[in-house]
Parts: sequence; C-alpha cells; structure tokens
Amino acid sequence: MSQPKYVHALKDVPVPAREELDEGTQKYFAVCDEKLGMVPNVLAAYSFDNAKLRAFSDMYGELMLGESGLTKLEREMIAVAVSSVNQCFYCLTAHGAAVRELSGDPILGELMVMNYRAAELPAKQRAMLDFAYKLTKTPNEMEESDRQALRDAGWTDRDIWDISATVSFFNMSNRMAMAIDMMPNEAYHSQAR
Amino acid sequence: MSQPKYVHALKDVPVPAREELDEGTQKYFAVCDEKLGMVPNVLAAYSFDNAKLRAFSDMYGELMLGESGLTKLEREMIAVAVSSVNQCFYCLTAHGAAVRELSGDPILGELMVMNYRAAELPAKQRAMLDFAYKLTKTPNEMEESDRQALRDAGWTDRDIWDISATVSFFNMSNRMAMAIDMMPNEAYHSQAR
Amino acid sequence: MSQPKYVHALKDVPVPAREELDEGTQKYFAVCDEKLGMVPNVLAAYSFDNAKLRAFSDMYGELMLGESGLTKLEREMIAVAVSSVNQCFYCLTAHGAAVRELSGDPILGELMVMNYRAAELPAKQRAMLDFAYKLTKTPNEMEESDRQALRDAGWTDRDIWDISATVSFFNMSNRMAMAIDMMPNEAYHSQAR
Amino acid sequence: MSQPKYVHALKDVPVPAREELDEGTQKYFAVCDEKLGMVPNVLAAYSFDNAKLRAFSDMYGELMLGESGLTKLEREMIAVAVSSVNQCFYCLTAHGAAVRELSGDPILGELMVMNYRAAELPAKQRAMLDFAYKLTKTPNEMEESDRQALRDAGWTDRDIWDISATVSFFNMSNRMAMAIDMMPNEAYHSQAR
Amino acid sequence: MSQPKYVHALKDVPVPAREELDEGTQKYFAVCDEKLGMVPNVLAAYSFDNAKLRAFSDMYGELMLGESGLTKLEREMIAVAVSSVNQCFYCLTAHGAAVRELSGDPILGELMVMNYRAAELPAKQRAMLDFAYKLTKTPNEMEESDRQALRDAGWTDRDIWDISATVSFFNMSNRMAMAIDMMPNEAYHSQAR
Amino acid sequence: MSQPKYVHALKDVPVPAREELDEGTQKYFAVCDEKLGMVPNVLAAYSFDNAKLRAFSDMYGELMLGESGLTKLEREMIAVAVSSVNQCFYCLTAHGAAVRELSGDPILGELMVMNYRAAELPAKQRAMLDFAYKLTKTPNEMEESDRQALRDAGWTDRDIWDISATVSFFNMSNRMAMAIDMMPNEAYHSQAR
Repeated sequence: MSQPKYVHALKDVPVPAREELDEGTQKYFAVCDEKLGMVPNVLAAYSFDNAKLRAFSDMYGELMLGESGLTKLEREMIAVAVSSVNQCFYCLTAHGAAVRELSGDPILGELMVMNYRAAELPAKQRAMLDFAYKLTKTPNEMEESDRQALRDAGWTDRDIWDISATVSFFNMSNRMAMAIDMMPNEAYHSQAR
Repeated sequence: MSQPKYVHALKDVPVPAREELDEGTQKYFAVCDEKLGMVPNVLAAYSFDNAKLRAFSDMYGELMLGESGLTKLEREMIAVAVSSVNQCFYCLTAHGAAVRELSGDPILGELMVMNYRAAELPAKQRAMLDFAYKLTKTPNEMEESDRQALRDAGWTDRDIWDISATVSFFNMSNRMAMAIDMMPNEAYHSQAR
Repeated sequence: MSQPKYVHALKDVPVPAREELDEGTQKYFAVCDEKLGMVPNVLAAYSFDNAKLRAFSDMYGELMLGESGLTKLEREMIAVAVSSVNQCFYCLTAHGAAVRELSGDPILGELMVMNYRAAELPAKQRAMLDFAYKLTKTPNEMEESDRQALRDAGWTDRDIWDISATVSFFNMSNRMAMAIDMMPNEAYHSQAR
Repeated sequence: MSQPKYVHALKDVPVPAREELDEGTQKYFAVCDEKLGMVPNVLAAYSFDNAKLRAFSDMYGELMLGESGLTKLEREMIAVAVSSVNQCFYCLTAHGAAVRELSGDPILGELMVMNYRAAELPAKQRAMLDFAYKLTKTPNEMEESDRQALRDAGWTDRDIWDISATVSFFNMSNRMAMAIDMMPNEAYHSQAR
Repeated sequence: MSQPKYVHALKDVPVPAREELDEGTQKYFAVCDEKLGMVPNVLAAYSFDNAKLRAFSDMYGELMLGESGLTKLEREMIAVAVSSVNQCFYCLTAHGAAVRELSGDPILGELMVMNYRAAELPAKQRAMLDFAYKLTKTPNEMEESDRQALRDAGWTDRDIWDISATVSFFNMSNRMAMAIDMMPNEAYHSQAR
Repeated sequence: MSQPKYVHALKDVPVPAREELDEGTQKYFAVCDEKLGMVPNVLAAYSFDNAKLRAFSDMYGELMLGESGLTKLEREMIAVAVSSVNQCFYCLTAHGAAVRELSGDPILGELMVMNYRAAELPAKQRAMLDFAYKLTKTPNEMEESDRQALRDAGWTDRDIWDISATVSFFNMSNRMAMAIDMMPNEAYHSQAR
C-alpha cells in the first residue's frame, strides 16, 4: 500500500503519542474513535499544541456541523469541489469519503473529486459550486453579479455567508495540508464505496 | 446513484444497440465483455462509425498495450496524472481503476487522481510525471532540459517517445470526453478498491 | 471620501448595533476600542453569530498574537503579501496598516501591498515570502524542495508550521472578505503613514 | 536558413533512411512525394515503428480527409487555431500552409497562426474557433452551453463530434511535436504564399 | 525607512548628477522641482540619454496631460489599475499618489492600488477599468464586444482610443520599471494621505 | 483575400486621407512610401492627431533605429517574440516581415512568430528572448536573477536597458493594436518570403 509515509513532512514538529496528550484531548480523541472509527490525521497533527488544535476544531465544528441553510452534504460537496481546484490529497480523501457517506452515492463523491461539472445536479447546487470554483480560483474577480447568481438560484444572503465561509475555510485547510504534505488516514479510501 | 445520465451529450449522434453493430464490432465488444466485464463507454460512443472506432482503438492498443520500456502501470499512471490536470471525469474514472487494478494498490490510484506529488514514488517515475504535468499544462515551454531530466532519471530516448506519446494521447482523449460530456461505465467506480 | 458603502454586501445578514450584542461581546469590543481605537469591521461583521465570532477571533488571536518563531511583524508581512496576490482590499488595508505600525516603516507596508519583490529584505524573510507567494498561487505544486528552501534560509520545522498556517489563514480570510465585499474601517488608511 | 537542425531531438530514436523501410511504407511515402512533393517529417519520425506510423496516419486520414460536415479547410483552420494556443512550431508551419493552400488566401493562414479573432469570418466559423480555443485552454470548464453555442451557430451534433475530435487530435499532435522538438519540412514555409 | 536602495538596478547605466545634464534637461528638471517638489526618478533614470528622455516625456505628456474626453483623474485611475494587475511598485506608488491628489480622496487611491472592484464607481468608470483589466491581462482575447461595452457605458470611439492608449502605455512603463527594479521617490508615499 | 476590413475598428476616429494631412506629415509619409513601399497602417491610424503621431514615431525610431548594443535584427526578434505571447496580429505581421527581411532568413521570421524556443539560436540571443518572454508574461516575478542571466550570457547593463525597453514598447503597441483591432498593410504578408 502506497500511502502512509508519515502524518506530515515536518519531522521536528512531532505527532504526540495518545498517552502524551492531556486529558481533554484524550477524551476528544476517544469520541473521534467512537464516532468516526479513527482520529483524523489533521487532528493528530494539530495536537502538539492545544490552542491550535482547539482553534481549528472549533472553527471546523461550527462551520461543518453547526446550524446552516446548507445541508451537511452540501457543505462537504463544497469542501471537495474546492479541494479539487487546489488538488489537495488530504482533503479530497477525507471529504470525498464524507460525500460518499452522507449521500449514500459513491459516484457523487467521485464527481466532486474529479470535476463537479460532470455531475447532474439541481441548479441551486450547481450555482453553489460555480461560486465555490470562482472564489477559489480568481477571488480578485468576485463581484455583486456572483452573489446575485446565488440569490437567483434560491440561496439567501445568510446562505451566501455560509457558502463563502466554507469555500474560504477549505482554501485555508487545503493550503495547510499541502504546505506540510499532510497524509490522510488510510481508512478513508475504502469508506462508503 | 448519481451518474449515468447518458453515454454522451450529443443526442443526434446515437449510440447504436449491440445488435445493430456489424459482425466485427460485435466480436470486438464480446472480447471486451469477456476481458473487462463490460464494453467501455468510449468504445460504445465511437461505434456509430467503424472507421473512427478502429482508428481510436488501434492507437489506444498500440500505445497502452504494445511493447514499451514503460510498464503498463506506468502508462496508466501517466493517463491519470494527465487527466487530473485536465479534470476529465471519464478518464480519471476509467484509468484510475486501471491503476488500482494493475498495482494492487488502491491508494496509488487515488494519488494519481488527486495529486501525484503526494505519492512516494521512485525518482524515475516522479520525473516521468513531472514531464507529463508540464507537457500537459505549458507545452509551449518544453525544452531540451525537460528531455534531459528524463534521461538523467534513467529513461532512454525511446522511452521519452513513449512517455510523450502517452501524455499527448490523453490530452486528446480528455478533451474529446469533456467536449461531449462522455460518462464512464458505472462499474469502474467500485473496481479494485 | 469614497469608501464606506457598507460593512459588507449581504443586506440580510445585518450588522448588529453595539447595544444589541451580548455582554461578553460588548466587553470584547470595548477592549478593541481601547487598544485599536476601533472595532475592526470584520469583527462587527461576524458579531451576528457568537459562535462564528469566537471561532474566528480565537484562531486569529492564536495565530497572529500567540507564541511563535515568527515576529508579529513577520506574520503581518505574510498577511499582506498573501492579500496582494489575492488582491483583497479589506486585508491589504487592515494589515498594511499593521505592517506600517509594527515596523515604524510606512514604505515597508506599501512594499508588501504592492510587490514584496521590490523590498530589500534579509534572505530569511525573502524566502518566507517566496514560500507564501507559491503556496497562495499554486498550492498544488508545493513540494519538499519548498520546505527545504525555508530550512536553508534558517527557519525551523516549527516555524514552517507557523508560516504555512499564516499563509493559509489569509487565503481563507481574503476569500471571505472578497466573497461578501467586506469593507475595512476608514481609519486604517491614515494610520502610521 | 535557420531551421533543419534535425527531424526531432531524440537522437536514439533514429529516422530510418527510405531504403530501410518496408515495402508498404516505401509505397506510402512515394504517394506522399507525388501528392505533397515531400514526405512530411512527422511521418518520417513515426516510420521507425510500423504500428505507430499506421495508427497515427489512419487516425489522421480519417479525421482530416474523411466524410464530415466540416470542409477540409475548416478542419485545417481548427488545426492551426489550436496549434496557435499551444504555440507548436511544427503544426503551425504544416497546417498554416494547408490553410493557405486550401483557401487560396495566404492571409487567412496568417490569421489562424497569429490570432483567429482578427479574422473576419462567418459567425458559424467563428463559433467553431471559439469552441476550439476554450476546449484547448480550459477543457475542465466545458459545459452544455458551449455545445449549445455551436448548435445555435448552425452546427449539428454530428458536426460537434468532428469539431471536438479535430481540436482534441491537435492537442495530441502539438504536444507530441513539442515534447520531442519535431521540426517541419522546410518546404512548407514558402508554399502558397 | 526601507526603500531607496537605488534609482534602478543597472549599475553600469549611471544616473547623471544634475550638474552633468545639458541645459535643456536642467531647465526641465527645475520645472519638475517647482511643480512636483521633486524630479521623478523615472526621469532621472532616463536622463543618461537625451533622446530617450525626450521620447518618454513627450509621450507621457501628450497622453496624461493633453486634450482628452477622459479627465486627468480617470487617466491616473487607469494607470493605477493597470499597475495593480502587473504589481509594479514604482507606478503604483507614483500614480497612486496622483489619484489621491487629483481626487482629494485618499481612499480612492488605495482602492485603485488594491482592487478597483471594491470601489463604488459610476458605471462609466467601472466599464473603463474592466476594459483596462482585460486588455492588460488577456490582450489576445479582446474583441468587438469589449469596445461595445465601453460605447454602451457612454464612451465615444475617440475616448476608447485614449483609454486604450493609456492602458497600453502603463503596460509598457510597468514592465520597464520592473525589468530594471526602478524605485520611486520616497516623497510619494506620504503625499495626499 | 481575407484581411483589409479596415485600418482599425473605431469608426468615429477616421483615418485622414493623405491630402488632408499637414505638410510635415505628408513629407514623412512620402519618405515611408519611398523607403518601405507603403505607409504602415499604424502611422495612418495615428495621423488624425499630430502630437500622438509624433510621440509614437519618435519613440519607435529612437528604440528600433537608434544606437544600441542590440542589432536591428535582435530588436525585431524581440518585437516578434513579445507579440507572439500577446498574439497581436498587427505586430506579428509587420515585425515578422522585418525579421525575414533583416535576416534574409524567412524561417527565422516564422520561428519568432510561432515559438522562439524551436529556433536554434546563440545562447546570448536565447537568453534575451527568455527574458522577453518572462517580462511579458509575468512582469511581477522579475528579479535580480533575471538580469544576472542576461549578464551571464554576455549582455551589458546598457544592453539590458535596451532589451527591457524593447520588450516594454511592444507590450504597449501590441495592446494598442489589439484594443482597436488594428489591421496591418496587406503587403507585409508576402515580403521576404
């Protein structure tokens, strides 16, 4: 199997062993084990510093699991479509699995990884992904007509906030993962195929 | 399941039923059924015109199955890495499956689809994929130093011909598939996971 | 004066009046007033939702004000150089002011806004900004040699984490600001000139 | 005269002398001599391997000389417009000559080589070249509206197949020629001026 | 203060001392001193050769100060918006100051430097800057519809000449400045803040 | 013959008839007739305004015909290589003819139009064109190492000024020509073939 060379490429930023972690983090990771069957490598990577781990997981949780006009699946679809533009191996792997899981449709996961334009989607979701693509690729060219296209497709201003925040977040996490060559847990690859 | 909307988007270029095909093509497709468990949609798409079908399959066969200093797996790795730059859903799906199959390493397939730079590869294969990436993305900037980098990594001039031909072929087939929105057979998605 | 058309373009995501905010946020904003002489519009924008505000400000604080091998000025230089690639009016304005302020060198702020390559910088800082530029523009092409260039310039692996995290964060906040056309407080423009 | 440094840059893939070729190829090349006044260097280059030569020339012949709703001139116009995006010296030279020859209009050849947008063309041909430009440059962004623009300009679905196939073919042959620095026959340059 | 490392990077093209200049140039520079409070570094740089200096300053004067349907401010806005695409430190500094000065609106200068799309502008000026952006970034894609968009926004053909000439001029002067790393006079930075 | 639709696309900026021009311009154009066998359309286009015509022709003359460490042919090679990146039909046509004429080598003209990398050039000229390519395409990324590469290839700082000025000038004139769809004189196409 080709993948797990390491959790990430920064040798001098070690990934702590579970037993080295403080109690709070150990509990958090135990919940991960229970719910996801693993501790995602991104969390293991951040666990060398509690403040960083908490900042990341709080923002992630609020964005991907909190209240929103977007379904959880739609948020994961954005995650993958953005990661496809940036070609982030970690995020495509982890969130591609999430799309397969949440949709019960393995092919939808592949479509988001490979090219969302090949998917047959409701116009509202297609507009969401077109916005995600442009905001990722040419953020400097965003203008009112881009927001209006989302409104015309049925999204509210509040939804536009969440779409924008999700696209933006994965433009961050893609770059963090690619900057340090972060590797995803192997288990993702076979999930929900 | 989200995918099979059609074989391709050109309604007035119909995909002939199996029994409408001439005897030779029916035999060819029977061999496909036997060897691959399916007739790849790209062949079904071309089957409306025998000359086109034969031209395509002859070139494909010569390139991907003929004698070469590249292993079949290496040729498939190029196919997927090129298709990743161009984001071709059809070719990523079909040749991603081939990489998984030929390597017995499902993760290697994902790595080629998502970003070959995240893979831990022998330097020789890495040089091959770097050449493929540049030739796909900025062909106008190719120069002697790019060929020399392949020679330095252990490839012969004869190998460089085959690497170049493979990269070039998938820059063709990616565009053909994307121009007409060609859809891959569903079966690929679950193969060799 | 041309600027303050609004805090952002999403009319149906209103910016709460100060007195509408809960006590904790009011206190936080009072500290901003005291320390910065204003509440940055980005915080006002997020204040419609406490969880989002806290997630954003926690991550921001940890990253830009926490312990690091990078000086605060270096972190602000990254913020501006990244925002220059993405052409984010909000972040160039706010963090350009911060660079002027922290360095006591107004021209350094302009250099970061306009083109960091025109600045005469120590090789170590120049390597940091070259990494930031590439990670922002072509994240898919990052590789070990990019990390090694930072190490060669004198940065530790732990510093590379922080450089990466800062570049990544502003690729998020740039896009959030540009997606919703967020406008910076006017006061920034004249600060530390 | 500056050009004929070699047929291509791969020294260890020699170009066989005419008398070394098998009888079939010798006949084929004799026909080239008669019809074109030369054997195109691309064929000489492929002649080290009969299967490769036949695969290439069969596909080429079917595409450029077979039945189609596109005139031969239109196919050559696509060849040159695609090669202009990719800046392929071989194909611009050989197919630029073909456009001059088939149209009897030397300036049309130059327009296709330099920038097809400067040409005064029927709307139908202009739509064909706009499609060719986009499919060459950003294949990942192709969508139904691109095909519809061709239909609106008067092309049938069957024509769209041929336009797509021609654009795709030259994205292959451009890259093959540029990968190995293939040089065109000198004679092209002065043809049909 | 970080900036004035030199007037430009070409050590063997010295910048003559004022007293070495011929009488005509000394008078010209005295006028600059009087009107602008300085001799712009670009003129000092060209002063090693009278013919070059005169050619540059004649074209500049005709374009930026001559009769036109564009106000002087509009011409400066174009100068800065173009320089922002090309990220030219010299021109952003010098012409950013001019926009602040002519408009009496310091923020307008920042908007042009950072991203003109964030400015609230009359539709006519916005169309002018959209044309400038496209002509700078993808000149090969210009077409009649781009000129028509200017006419629709209220510009005459004669104005389109001047808009085009101004955009073109700064694509020249940006590149000249960046090719030789020309540094602007420090005084610009604090002007009209 | 496909070309001369007009001198340029701005109908309300008429091209004056020869007899309408003032005496000085008539004389200038008579010299053009004598030396070049035509009045280049670019001059006819500018002749509606004497100041603009003189500014353009003075700068052009100084740059392309004045004293320099670059031969006239080298300056024309730069003109064409720059125009090839920008795909300017006018300048490729007019200056492609000049390269053919000055070199007595028609193929060299084609090489500059199509892709200078396919030409077999002395290393010094190749370095000059590599600099021209980068300065045209990504001016924001120019740095000291680019200038040093020219010095290493044998160019003086004074030559670097002239190379830079020539590249810059054609980035201006390309854009002016493309902005207004300026058409070259037909006669160029057959010159020096």
